[in-house]
Amino acid sequence: MIRIAVDAMGGDYAPKATVEGAVWAAIDYNVAIELVGREDDIKQELDRIQKKGLKITRGGFFEQKIKVDLSKLDIKITNANEIIEMGEAPGQAIRKKRNSSIVLAVQAVATGSSQAIVAAGSTGAAMASSLFGLGRLPGIERPAIAVTLPTMKKPFILLDAGANSSCTPEMLYQFAVMGTTFAKNVYGYENPKVGVLNIGEEAGKGNELVQATYKMLEENTIGLNFIGNIEGKELFQGNCDVIVCDGFSGNLVLKTIEGCSSMLFKMISQEFKRDPLSIIIGMLAKPFMKRIYKRINYEEYGGALLLGVKGITIISHGRSTPYAIKNAVRVAKEAVESEVNRKISELYE
Amino acid sequence: MIRIAVDAMGGDYAPKATVEGAVWAAIDYNVAIELVGREDDIKQELDRIQKKGLKITRGGFFEQKIKVDLSKLDIKITNANEIIEMGEAPGQAIRKKRNSSIVLAVQAVATGSSQAIVAAGSTGAAMASSLFGLGRLPGIERPAIAVTLPTMKKPFILLDAGANSSCTPEMLYQFAVMGTTFAKNVYGYENPKVGVLNIGEEAGKGNELVQATYKMLEENTIGLNFIGNIEGKELFQGNCDVIVCDGFSGNLVLKTIEGCSSMLFKMISQEFKRDPLSIIIGMLAKPFMKRIYKRINYEEYGGALLLGVKGITIISHGRSTPYAIKNAVRVAKEAVESEVNRKISELYE
Repeated sequence: MIRIAVDAMGGDYAPKATVEGAVWAAIDYNVAIELVGREDDIKQELDRIQKKGLKITRGGFFEQKIKVDLSKLDIKITNANEIIEMGEAPGQAIRKKRNSSIVLAVQAVATGSSQAIVAAGSTGAAMASSLFGLGRLPGIERPAIAVTLPTMKKPFILLDAGANSSCTPEMLYQFAVMGTTFAKNVYGYENPKVGVLNIGEEAGKGNELVQATYKMLEENTIGLNFIGNIEGKELFQGNCDVIVCDGFSGNLVLKTIEGCSSMLFKMISQEFKRDPLSIIIGMLAKPFMKRIYKRINYEEYGGALLLGVKGITIISHGRSTPYAIKNAVRVAKEAVESEVNRKISELYE
Repeated sequence: MIRIAVDAMGGDYAPKATVEGAVWAAIDYNVAIELVGREDDIKQELDRIQKKGLKITRGGFFEQKIKVDLSKLDIKITNANEIIEMGEAPGQAIRKKRNSSIVLAVQAVATGSSQAIVAAGSTGAAMASSLFGLGRLPGIERPAIAVTLPTMKKPFILLDAGANSSCTPEMLYQFAVMGTTFAKNVYGYENPKVGVLNIGEEAGKGNELVQATYKMLEENTIGLNFIGNIEGKELFQGNCDVIVCDGFSGNLVLKTIEGCSSMLFKMISQEFKRDPLSIIIGMLAKPFMKRIYKRINYEEYGGALLLGVKGITIISHGRSTPYAIKNAVRVAKEAVESEVNRKISELYE
């Protein structure tokens, strides 16, 4: 059975959300779990779940409480006394806090105790510890964060979503290779379409980085299915499967989407609170809004994959709920099963 | 009376939308208009409006047809035989097509016949002809496109939204100066808060450009109210009034917002078409959705202001409707009245 190491102390709602999400995943996906963090805290959460049950939602709608028999699940605890906080400088923090939950979660994969990591804490610390603890894949200059985003049709992969503020064309080219392999093997996309995130459609548009990347991808001889530049407004039309950009641009886009959709949903709920009639109509419309929210909710995708290291690290949102953690474990399991990393390496052999 | 030159041939729905919008603005804002474009086409549109009336909406909701007596409005036509198409290289096009509508609209301002330009055609051509025909403001290295974006509270100004793919910290600093002057004088914001668009809150975050810009703005002695880095997800909280970035990032963010909100509204209308019941609830909810659409609709803001040239150029969306053109003329008039440019120049004297 595949075992996933979950940094139990990572994220705004840890360890409650992480432990609940991990248990939920163990039930739903037939996966073994290694919870890494303060043993006492984790045990307390597990005891509570064993005694009082676990609140879950099915189909994202109906909440229910289920009984959990932990003795039937394969969940082990690895004690880690230290926690890396969100504000700490990642490189320094992982060297100083060798017994932090994220460092030991990575170590669990390095030693073969688990096969993948789910990390909802500091993104920088997850990246740094993965890079340091697992090493880079051969042929890859820098790892990238690959996020999955919804469109009107099927989801697409955007990378880099924030691992590297400044990039070279060679790096973006490697991101295209890694993204293509991921899209093929985890999402089963045939011959994934690759685009460069840009501010215009024509080849000459944008800054030097994207112009040079365009040229490299156009001339590629390893079978990348390059379709050209993709503008921000086209992102959600679902016509491209893998979109590459530097980590600064990718992170901007990612957070703009987050901010924009959150504003729209807030405005909707404001409008439905204007007067008694609007409250009634709002109640009728609520299930529809929930369905849309579910379609675009990042929690569905569970987290971003750190591509380019010798191992699987899923970087979850800092505000991860149990539902998000559960889905992150699912993505981790799928990434392990599909052997993404081995397939990326093969392209460089 | 202030006169606004409207490039009648610019935009996807020209000359119909541009002429209708210009007439509407002349009625609503007590402003004189100079329509620049093919005389015959413009006359045909004006004749139609005179005979059949003008379709307008009040409060963005109720469509009505009003009678128009053109003899009571101050609208003149300046003939321009050529049109610069969207795909043309701007620099080349404005040199080759000296009788194009955008070049002659800029010339109308240069010669004092009009006081500002509204351009819904090629952004590049509008920029190039403005820069060439009007010249830069003293002390300004490069002009920037300033867009106004909605938030949960009051709107903010983002610049540069696409004029300069690559920028230096000095340019971003100048954008902060111009944006602050604009926010003060056109929007009446007191001591506008200035932020740098970045992928993290701390001073050390982001690429070299934003780090150096942060430092310059922090050390400014001309009274800029610098509040630090602003992340994409904070954009819509309305806590910052002027946000500076390079044109590549700004355009990415702008188009991502456009794509993201358009996707959400499409999803909403999809959900409300599932079955007879959802159609009924959708009809009840429609006025609410329209109200939200209006709150975030770019048409309300009419267009972006090209800051840094000796004159006022409003760059409207290529898909501008008459309503958007009407609002663009309003923004143009407000910019002329508030003497933004003179006030920017004063800061550099």
